[in-house]
This record gives sequence, structure tokens and C-alpha cells, in this order.
Amino acid sequence: MPEKISMPDRIIGILGGMGPEATADFFREIIQLTPASRDQDHIPVLIYSNTRIPDRTAAILEGGEDPLPLLIDSAKVLERAGAGIITMPCNTAHLYVESLRRATAIPVLHMIDETVRELRSRYPELRSVGLLATTGTIRAGIYQSALGAAGIAAVVPEEPDQDRIMAVIRDIKADRNRDEARRSVKRICLGLAAQGAEAVILGCTELPLVLDTKRPPCPLLNPTRILAQAAVKWARGGAADD
Amino acid sequence: MPEKISMPDRIIGILGGMGPEATADFFREIIQLTPASRDQDHIPVLIYSNTRIPDRTAAILEGGEDPLPLLIDSAKVLERAGAGIITMPCNTAHLYVESLRRATAIPVLHMIDETVRELRSRYPELRSVGLLATTGTIRAGIYQSALGAAGIAAVVPEEPDQDRIMAVIRDIKADRNRDEARRSVKRICLGLAAQGAEAVILGCTELPLVLDTKRPPCPLLNPTRILAQAAVKWARGGAADD
Repeated sequence: MPEKISMPDRIIGILGGMGPEATADFFREIIQLTPASRDQDHIPVLIYSNTRIPDRTAAILEGGEDPLPLLIDSAKVLERAGAGIITMPCNTAHLYVESLRRATAIPVLHMIDETVRELRSRYPELRSVGLLATTGTIRAGIYQSALGAAGIAAVVPEEPDQDRIMAVIRDIKADRNRDEARRSVKRICLGLAAQGAEAVILGCTELPLVLDTKRPPCPLLNPTRILAQAAVKWARGGAADD
Repeated sequence: MPEKISMPDRIIGILGGMGPEATADFFREIIQLTPASRDQDHIPVLIYSNTRIPDRTAAILEGGEDPLPLLIDSAKVLERAGAGIITMPCNTAHLYVESLRRATAIPVLHMIDETVRELRSRYPELRSVGLLATTGTIRAGIYQSALGAAGIAAVVPEEPDQDRIMAVIRDIKADRNRDEARRSVKRICLGLAAQGAEAVILGCTELPLVLDTKRPPCPLLNPTRILAQAAVKWARGGAADD
């Protein structure tokens, strides 16, 4: 039996719904990463799965409705309800992290910075990493700037494969064609590895929902799990690297 | 592609953490029961996984700490945050539903009443049902009173099997011995069927986490899914049968 933990009174806030299944996956990662033998050993969590937040990629690429006002509104709901930190299991939404941080009084964990930190710690010699993400995340350079600052080059899929990744993300959100999605993601991972990527970042929270990480096609980084690790560390008394 | 739904602005509140994995399972049921082809088709959900709520069975059987104050506090957090209804994926906690209803201004769905309603609709001729639940749920008669009012007798496991069910629930909460737990639950289900139960209620939200409902040992009712159905129906414009 795992030893009892003295749990500080820290509530993790999850700004979710982008999409909801990715939010559930993130919540489950937090539960699984917490050593617990009974309910009361687990970390209190507040989740707002606000599915009304406008599409992030459409806002970045096509001037679609701005998601920032509802992101701020949702973060404030969590803050007022008692959350001590905000986590956001959506990579593309991290374009808005600095604005969110200015609008809230509690720290906002940064999934992209946490992932790059984990990448450097797990593979200190790595110089080139593959990036699977929405076209919004890629065009906005959300990962590339953090990777560049760490001296790591990002390898992204060429256009037909990037279009396929977007179709896969849409299919996962619509809960259809999961086997086909899995095969495509594996094939595109191997293509990035052939182009020199030493590992691949699953940089959209829908992608870990289909990829069997027990038999990865190449070394993979799952930002959903990495963010959950950072949140659990904070809840167990660590500082928020805000 | 499923047709687009016009989604009313109704937020489902989940008073969870009893245990957290059962809460995640309930959240996933809501997502899977919602016809959606993109994030924005999904129902907004607010979850408070308040793992600090004291153990319900210990309160009922051994005079342990009263969970009601934190249940009310958590329901009010959800209400203030904007939830339009409270759902509570914990059967034992339903002993406190009437007190919760008095303390909140929004409806509280009743998992046990919904389950008995579903039982009558799915098996109109049924007169005897097996009940797998915590010893707290069974001793407090939470299901038996609702079943009795519907003219249905409850068959519960005899003492050694009931003790085994409690051990199974503790094991699931501690995330250990799942295969063994699954075998025990199947064996005890078959025992209840041999005693005349025409179906079995999985009356603790931990139990559906281990039972493969694609190949059930006998007809099963999953109150987690039934409560999710009622919540989705409400969110899509239905009345809360409060």
C-alpha cells in the first residue's frame, strides 16, 4: 500500500472543453499520477469544460471569433470557485497564456514551456524534434519559439501530411475513424523521424487519445501528461513555474 | 456527420471526487452520450472533484465524520460558478440528496430514482433485482426504498460476498488488483442471478470501472450511465425530474 500523503489544500483548476475528451484525459492523468489508496488522498480539482470557447485554429488562421474573452471568463470562474492554479489542456490556446496571466490573480501553468523543459531533461543531447499540432499552433509558432530558445529545431509535417493531421484532429473530436487516425499519426511520426526528428511532440491534446503510447513508433512526448505532472507537483507543495 | 444541435445554455454541475476516477468516468459518459462533431456541440460542464468529502460509508456505519457540510459547500461552489443542475456520481452520497436539495437553489438529479425509472422502463415485468453497492448504501436502504415503491425486491449479497464487494471497491479506489476485482464482481453477479435476481444494479460508481459491460455476466444496470443520460437530456432542453 502506498504511504499516506499529507495533502496541502491546493485545488487544481482545469480550463477545459477544448475539446472535452482531452479535458477528461488530462483529469485522468492527474488521478493516475497521484499516489492514493483512498478518495481523500487525491487532489481536489475544479474543471470548467467550457465547450463554448470559439475554435482556436479558426481564430488564428481565418480571423474567426476571438477565444480570449471566454478563456478569461472561464479562468475567472475557476479562480472565484477556489482554484489555486490554472491548467489548460489545449496547446493552441497557449497563444493566449500571457493575456490570461495578466487577467487572473492565480498562476497559469504553461504546457508548452513544461514540455520543452521535460524534453531537455529527458533528452539533453536532442537537437531536432518533430511537432504534430494544429495548423494554428504551428503557424503561430507557439512551440517553435520555446524550442528555439532551448536550441532545438522543430520539424513539422509537409503540407499534405499537415492537412491529414488536421483531418485526424477533427475526426477525433467527432469520435470517428479512430483506427485510421492512429495509423496516420504513426505514419507521419515515422516520416518526421526519417527527416531527422529524434523524438516527436504530440502537440495537440486530441492526439494522445488515439496513440498507443505503450508501443510508440518513435520516442514521443505527451504534453497532456507533462502538464499533469507539473500540476500534481504544484498540488503537492511545489512552486508554480509561472 | 451528425446534424448540428442547437444547444441551450445549460451547464451540468458535477459534484464529484467520490472517488475521482468515478467522476472522470461519469464525465466521459456525458461526452460520449452527446452527439457532436466539434467541441462547440458539446455540453458545458462544471466539475468539483472535492476529494476532501469524508467517506460516506464510514459516516453511515461507524459514526465517521459527516460528509453533508462539504457536500453542501461543494454544491454551492458549483451553483455560484454557473451550474444549472447538480449531478452526484456517488450512490452512497444519495442518502443526503434531500438535505442538499434544501440547501441549493438549483435542481439535484437523483441517480437512484433515475435508475429505478430506467429499470422499470427497460424490464417492465421485472420483480427482483440484484444490488451491488457499498455496505453504507445497503444498510441505509437507499435503493431498497425506491425499488420497494416500484414493487421490486432487492437481492443483496450475503455477508462474506458483501465484505468482498467492499474490498473490491477499496481496491478499485486504490487502483490495484483490477482483474481480481472483475472476477469477484462477475462471480457475485452470477450468485445473485442464481438467487432469482433478473438483473443486477452496479450501485457503486467504482464498479463500472472494472466490469466489461460488453460481455456482462447477466443483465446489468449502470447508474453512472443512467445519470449521464438524464443530465444530457436536461442539458438539451428537458425538465429536471427533481
